[in-house]
Amino acid sequence: MKSQIKYQGGLHFIGQTESGHEIQWDSAPVGVATNGSTPMEAVLQAAAVCSAMDVVSILKKRRKEISTFELEVEADRKSDHPKIFENLTITYRIAGNGITLEEVEKAVSLSHDKYCTVANMLKPKVNVGYRVELLEDQSS
Amino acid sequence: MKSQIKYQGGLHFIGQTESGHEIQWDSAPVGVATNGSTPMEAVLQAAAVCSAMDVVSILKKRRKEISTFELEVEADRKSDHPKIFENLTITYRIAGNGITLEEVEKAVSLSHDKYCTVANMLKPKVNVGYRVELLEDQSS
Repeated sequence: MKSQIKYQGGLHFIGQTESGHEIQWDSAPVGVATNGSTPMEAVLQAAAVCSAMDVVSILKKRRKEISTFELEVEADRKSDHPKIFENLTITYRIAGNGITLEEVEKAVSLSHDKYCTVANMLKPKVNVGYRVELLEDQSS
Repeated sequence: MKSQIKYQGGLHFIGQTESGHEIQWDSAPVGVATNGSTPMEAVLQAAAVCSAMDVVSILKKRRKEISTFELEVEADRKSDHPKIFENLTITYRIAGNGITLEEVEKAVSLSHDKYCTVANMLKPKVNVGYRVELLEDQSS
């Protein structure tokens, strides 16, 4: 896997991905407008989305239809350099016709133990944890 | 740091960052059009950009003007699950009035050893290496 990235001035960079997308990167003190996400913001989301994609794939294989799937991901950072994430928690909120909490928990656990590349690159330096909540299915 | 992410169908997700940006995430076999970057594509770029931001900040403190800064970042992945990056190499190509190769190498090394959060979360699971090239300054 390969990417090209070009500097735009300030702390603004634009990267091209192999899948044909552009990523805007930037950084500034809180409250100052920027041109893109910070690297740590993207890694935080990447950990959650990587695992969420596993969960979708696992449930799809079991012929389950997801109607709602929302994620919240949160992390605190060390106070000394390098200010890496210390604890990272992903909350999975999911609903679908006939989907049970047990099935979702099993899929999430399989993702964390075996499939999720991003979470498994961060461990063990970062404590990666999760919570699963089953929402009421509004689709049927 | 916190993010909210919503599922859009297929493997498409949209995330909101604290800095006010939207990240589009997606995944598909090579050659199939997608709505956004994959988590691994974003982590690959995040590692390079995180370090590049350090390099810009360090050179700026030394009152150096960067005229060109291009990055290439490349990684291979393990063949077994979880298919994490095995070796990741960042190439820094930089030019600026009066900037020397030695200065850039020092800034890059300081970033990898001390400041770069993303690279330092991936190590030691991922072998993170780098190359520095000084380009001819076209600005003066």
